[in-house]
Amino acid sequence: MSKEVLYLKIAGTVEQQIASETLKVGDKLPSIRTVQKIYNVSLNTVKQAFLELESKSLIESRPKSGYYVSNSYGRRLSIPDTSKPKLYDKEKHPEDLITRVFDTLYYKDITKFSLGVPANGLLPIAKLNKGVIKAMRNLEGSGTAYEPVQGSVNLRRNISRWSFVWAGQLTENDVVTTSGAMNALYNCFIAVTKPGDTIALESPIYFGILQMARELGLKIIELPTHPVTGIEIDALKKILPVIKACCLVSNFNNPLGSCMPDEHKKEVVRLLTQHNIPLIEDDLYGDIFFGTTRPVPCKYYDEAGMVMWCGSFSKSLAPGYRVGWVAPGKFKEKIIRQKLLQTISTPPLYQEVIADFMEHGRYDHHLRTLRHKLYTNCLQYQRAITDYFPENTKVTQPQGGFVLWLELDKRIDTAMLYNQAIKQNISFAPGRMFTQHNQFNNCMRLNFGLKWDEKLESDLKRLGKIVKNAL
Amino acid sequence: MSKEVLYLKIAGTVEQQIASETLKVGDKLPSIRTVQKIYNVSLNTVKQAFLELESKSLIESRPKSGYYVSNSYGRRLSIPDTSKPKLYDKEKHPEDLITRVFDTLYYKDITKFSLGVPANGLLPIAKLNKGVIKAMRNLEGSGTAYEPVQGSVNLRRNISRWSFVWAGQLTENDVVTTSGAMNALYNCFIAVTKPGDTIALESPIYFGILQMARELGLKIIELPTHPVTGIEIDALKKILPVIKACCLVSNFNNPLGSCMPDEHKKEVVRLLTQHNIPLIEDDLYGDIFFGTTRPVPCKYYDEAGMVMWCGSFSKSLAPGYRVGWVAPGKFKEKIIRQKLLQTISTPPLYQEVIADFMEHGRYDHHLRTLRHKLYTNCLQYQRAITDYFPENTKVTQPQGGFVLWLELDKRIDTAMLYNQAIKQNISFAPGRMFTQHNQFNNCMRLNFGLKWDEKLESDLKRLGKIVKNAL
Repeated sequence: MSKEVLYLKIAGTVEQQIASETLKVGDKLPSIRTVQKIYNVSLNTVKQAFLELESKSLIESRPKSGYYVSNSYGRRLSIPDTSKPKLYDKEKHPEDLITRVFDTLYYKDITKFSLGVPANGLLPIAKLNKGVIKAMRNLEGSGTAYEPVQGSVNLRRNISRWSFVWAGQLTENDVVTTSGAMNALYNCFIAVTKPGDTIALESPIYFGILQMARELGLKIIELPTHPVTGIEIDALKKILPVIKACCLVSNFNNPLGSCMPDEHKKEVVRLLTQHNIPLIEDDLYGDIFFGTTRPVPCKYYDEAGMVMWCGSFSKSLAPGYRVGWVAPGKFKEKIIRQKLLQTISTPPLYQEVIADFMEHGRYDHHLRTLRHKLYTNCLQYQRAITDYFPENTKVTQPQGGFVLWLELDKRIDTAMLYNQAIKQNISFAPGRMFTQHNQFNNCMRLNFGLKWDEKLESDLKRLGKIVKNAL
Repeated sequence: MSKEVLYLKIAGTVEQQIASETLKVGDKLPSIRTVQKIYNVSLNTVKQAFLELESKSLIESRPKSGYYVSNSYGRRLSIPDTSKPKLYDKEKHPEDLITRVFDTLYYKDITKFSLGVPANGLLPIAKLNKGVIKAMRNLEGSGTAYEPVQGSVNLRRNISRWSFVWAGQLTENDVVTTSGAMNALYNCFIAVTKPGDTIALESPIYFGILQMARELGLKIIELPTHPVTGIEIDALKKILPVIKACCLVSNFNNPLGSCMPDEHKKEVVRLLTQHNIPLIEDDLYGDIFFGTTRPVPCKYYDEAGMVMWCGSFSKSLAPGYRVGWVAPGKFKEKIIRQKLLQTISTPPLYQEVIADFMEHGRYDHHLRTLRHKLYTNCLQYQRAITDYFPENTKVTQPQGGFVLWLELDKRIDTAMLYNQAIKQNISFAPGRMFTQHNQFNNCMRLNFGLKWDEKLESDLKRLGKIVKNAL
């Protein structure tokens, strides 16, 4: 058999296995060397076969990991359109719905697609525990003493060093640690707004930010947001004269999964700086990217100190540790003062644990594993949704984070659907939670940070059935 | 020798030793049995001798501990008068001074009489560390998972059980955990006031509360406060029509050390309830009493749910843990909502450690030791101040907590004195930090929660000399 025919034969075999779902989306292919031995062919032949499959978007390579069955084979579902917030609609906050969903968070035996945190199985708990014991030994008074208001020097140093992944130029002096990213955002809002001010947000947007802004007496303008590229810059331009601050989840936004292209980030920073409007950047998903490099935050383009770059370890390492940070640019003193007044300081122990974890390369190592697992999960979910949900379902294709956003048939009301799902021990986050307007009623957010197994697949299948039955 | 003469002889010997300072204030006397053996007399004779000395206020007994040389022998210094806040003075917050004092907090080799926390040596660090390892084993995800917004159920249960020490009727549902007492106060202020409102505080008062109230846009009325009995109720009565909330450190107030008598507490709660004014009660020193029983908080008299009872473990167990609580009465839902918005939840680990510490009687045991050490320190300080400070120095006689308030000669400016002291590696908290008015310039607060030794005594001596030289 000629070499040419050989590589096509191999490619064809794999393609058939994918078509028959013997190989499923997200499955790892045998390594090139394994295939070489199986078929007793040259390395080049196998590489050519894989190239053929890649060019058909049937498989994809991931750095230092190998080849995987890719998402795009047989994909029937499109991604949602740019959101069009009903700006002139009377605002109505989705408080009751949020409460209803939160009330079920502590039920046992529920598959919580509604959650916004990675499952325990994805966290390096044993290694963190060792870190706790080490930190307890090293800290002054084993962590019983107050630390400086600005936060652990070791952690601030490691966060600023870590910013090299996006070519950041931060130093330990630029960073203030906080009780998670929400606490960072809260202090940023307090620092740069006052009750009655108007701010701009993505739409849909994490309900916690909506609730916080409302509680602080802020008026919110939701911006049209594309599921891939984020906010529409023209829409932002129009409201620049009226807003006092802007808050964006620039990378892998929750719930849309959008990631602003670099030019957009640059332009947004330029525009806001020009109008002297601070940007509160919530970059808590930036490290959980599926591509080859970490997307830069808007902070990268910030020369005037107008970007308050917030992040946390809640989504990547340990939600319960409540450790986050902000690099607040020119608003640093205000942030430190707020932290002092609200709580004196944050507990030193966990900050030290994370600093040590970062310093010894464990964070980097953990993130590689985490990203790999989450991306595989993401592909599995998308495949399952394609299989089990109605054909007119739209679903996002996030390149990071751990949530999917589904847009269902217009006739579906996911807040109603929630009641049915919860009876079957399945929870999800109805779309209406993520806006102050009467919209996204046919949408839902699903967390793919759960452990993938047959049970989970069957739960997704049941959820798809509930949707189908509702039509 | 007759029995009568015998007991007087023994008493006289002890009295001479006290007069010559062979026995110093705070020293423990030999046990009754030891004295019995030394003099070969009956137990009753020794008891009668000790009774004689007690009646002269030369010694005092402490439950389960023995007899100690008491404070009152040869005491020359009087206690300060009731404060008279200059209500109509222009307000000027002591920000620069506070910053100046805070800036030296992390200097090494400084004797920090300025601190407001107990020294490491007074904390049960080894036992707490064991608790950390145990809690890590028992908690879901070793503490990496979120906990309910209201806080750890185990800790809330133990705090409510602990309230039996003042006959409290709380349940776990009444308590919300916080990041220390300051965070509890912050949330209480947010819950019951809005910018522009007027509140009432003691005077002098912990500067953190002043700063917080100011940052929240609140107007402050400082109330005349007696160093033993706390605020003057008549003064409170007069301003009831204008205030929207009242915040009191009811037990062993920082910095005065005052403890409101029960009738005062009852009356304050009655008056405030009648006028529908919430009382934010900061009871963070209540467990550190030197007498035989814990003083009740105002919460004890609260029937309408108008008292928000705040406390923390920062002063008794571990400042760096950042664990406090509030039993917010009828404002519970508002407090929980604030906590959710600001930080989602608090870290579960330390809450579990403290819950376990309380549940197994270790907290009670630790408090007994802590109180004993602090009281002994307090007596040593008072004795040293009597010895080394000018004769017209006034000093408080707190029955709990760990700070002393000194009123020096009118001509002394302790803010100026601070600069001289810091050059000699001694820091204290100048009185002006504790008020928004131009007063207490001749006062200082000293922390007696440091380890007592010759070095500390010589530092107090040097401080006394600095004061004398300033005259």
